[in-house]
Amino acid sequence: MATGSGVPITPLLKEELDIVIPTIRNLDFLEMWRPFFQPYHLIIVQDGDPTRTIKVPEGFDYELYNRNDINRILGPKASCISFKDSACRCFGYMVSKKKYIYTIDDDCFVAKEPSGKDINALEQHIKNLLSPSTPFFFNTLYDPYREGADFVRGYPFSLREGVTTAVSHGLWLNIPDYDAPTQLVKPRERNTRYVDAVLTIPKGTLFPMCGMNLAFNRELIGPAMYFGLMGDGQPIGRYDDMWAGWCMKVICDHLGLGVKTGLPYIWHSKASNPFVNLKKEYNGIFWQEELIPFFQSANLPKECNTVQKCYIELSKQVKAKLGKVDPYFDKLADAMVMWIEAWDELNPSKEAADAANGPKKEK
Amino acid sequence: MATGSGVPITPLLKEELDIVIPTIRNLDFLEMWRPFFQPYHLIIVQDGDPTRTIKVPEGFDYELYNRNDINRILGPKASCISFKDSACRCFGYMVSKKKYIYTIDDDCFVAKEPSGKDINALEQHIKNLLSPSTPFFFNTLYDPYREGADFVRGYPFSLREGVTTAVSHGLWLNIPDYDAPTQLVKPRERNTRYVDAVLTIPKGTLFPMCGMNLAFNRELIGPAMYFGLMGDGQPIGRYDDMWAGWCMKVICDHLGLGVKTGLPYIWHSKASNPFVNLKKEYNGIFWQEELIPFFQSANLPKECNTVQKCYIELSKQVKAKLGKVDPYFDKLADAMVMWIEAWDELNPSKEAADAANGPKKEK
Repeated sequence: MATGSGVPITPLLKEELDIVIPTIRNLDFLEMWRPFFQPYHLIIVQDGDPTRTIKVPEGFDYELYNRNDINRILGPKASCISFKDSACRCFGYMVSKKKYIYTIDDDCFVAKEPSGKDINALEQHIKNLLSPSTPFFFNTLYDPYREGADFVRGYPFSLREGVTTAVSHGLWLNIPDYDAPTQLVKPRERNTRYVDAVLTIPKGTLFPMCGMNLAFNRELIGPAMYFGLMGDGQPIGRYDDMWAGWCMKVICDHLGLGVKTGLPYIWHSKASNPFVNLKKEYNGIFWQEELIPFFQSANLPKECNTVQKCYIELSKQVKAKLGKVDPYFDKLADAMVMWIEAWDELNPSKEAADAANGPKKEK
Repeated sequence: MATGSGVPITPLLKEELDIVIPTIRNLDFLEMWRPFFQPYHLIIVQDGDPTRTIKVPEGFDYELYNRNDINRILGPKASCISFKDSACRCFGYMVSKKKYIYTIDDDCFVAKEPSGKDINALEQHIKNLLSPSTPFFFNTLYDPYREGADFVRGYPFSLREGVTTAVSHGLWLNIPDYDAPTQLVKPRERNTRYVDAVLTIPKGTLFPMCGMNLAFNRELIGPAMYFGLMGDGQPIGRYDDMWAGWCMKVICDHLGLGVKTGLPYIWHSKASNPFVNLKKEYNGIFWQEELIPFFQSANLPKECNTVQKCYIELSKQVKAKLGKVDPYFDKLADAMVMWIEAWDELNPSKEAADAANGPKKEK
């Protein structure tokens, strides 16, 4: 990669970040991303028919998992990974060994700044993740760590160090991320407004996290990024990222981690079919009315001092309080536990790994 | 006023909004605002020496109050209105009879959109106030009521009606609203970033409200907009708007009212002297570390169902909990009560007015 002045620069976090892409088609969209993505390792999660061959443009470094791979690697626990739904992407988070994840949909292209300059979405996400968040008090000039900005008058000095950022939620120009009813009512609406801001979602506030253009610190929050049971055999779709976002936000708030939204934009090219979407969403449209109060009042005890412990506790509360909304949530609560078990198997803690390896070394 | 096409339009809320300007100098700055402000009534609160004559450009409809007027109108209660500090502006809120207030500093000029178009700040504030707020859940595309935007996927439908907006907090291009330490460290920093967004400050989140470019619904929240005891004879300055903002936000959250920040921008022309500011601010810099936790945990009982009741309750909590921080807060708590008493005298409720007028009519 080279700057405009011809000076080669090393891509940020090259060895510490994986790009996770769920797909059912050839990844031609990567051509447009080549200048920004090629230095990084890709984890492609192939959804649907595993016999189909997905073509990846030449020159990209990648590993690809289809359903057979997922079943082989996770065994009976593979049932926690959704099938025929982009929720399957979270399998990629689990098998990654990197500190950071960027995930993007294959219908997302490089957007342009108002100046006409191509937006390196990944670079902006990395900036967001590497600078602190400010969840305890709102800064009216938005991200105070950005060049040309700072904390304004009246911002307590004790809070200016901020907290570590766990999640960077990016936005979309062109096709906005609307639900089926809104798509049906406003089929021609396009997002043309470039809002030049990054901001921290305040502590205690929930938001709709979209998985289309999303980065996170896997070490800090990875186990909370479970995209739930969606798609094939499930009564719901298109709530995978929402579910992950609500669980993640409650846990970040509890653990004192930051969540940002705003820049970078990608160009979302293709509106999904609103009729198909309505079929997937309609249960969710009812259920979210119960889910939001549930997550708003969810409380994690002090003993929950790791993401895993938080997530298991949350699964219990899901079972206890949402099971009566629909039996689906009983099944989802079980899958949440299974997900954590599978995560820990594939990602043993250093202590667990040392303990497991210890006796062998003594031989 | 005329549109670009030559069609005359009636200015929004012409009969329902007063513009409040605190000043110590001739109001030449109004010349630049003439196309936008001239249709409205101005309330000028003259600070400092009352014998000085403030010149107002021709053609503006205004009333002007100096310190002698304030003393005459409020009698002993005039002591709740600050002297030699722009906090005196809140006297203008009290004597207004309109539903809406816009307040602006006399060093604020018309800013331009990136396109070069002059920004009608007042018009944008009115749009903000007349459209709902969304304090219970964050919308990632910002104000969902703006043209070209909406609620995104995952936003609960039951929350899409929003709540009534009480306050619209506008921003500043050029000189940012920094505290003295930041001014000292970054004397040359200018705000050049035009962020094309309006957003609701979520429920439970506090922010630093700046009084430079601020509009509010006086009927809904006016009595909470007390700018405190600052300036002459007080141990603190430059926290007037902050104090009002924290009190106001706690009360809006309690009463289910919305607070927005973002557009419109004004052009802030003149940086105040950081050394003078430091002298005014330094107590506040310590005290705000206690004030923020106080306001974050302040809880108003259900019986507080009017702004006045909320404000009186808050004054009690200030006395009980902040009095030990500094005796100043005892005095401030008393002034808060005096402010409400004066407000109610000048703004009798319809029932109170009817009761007072009733016997006279019977004569």
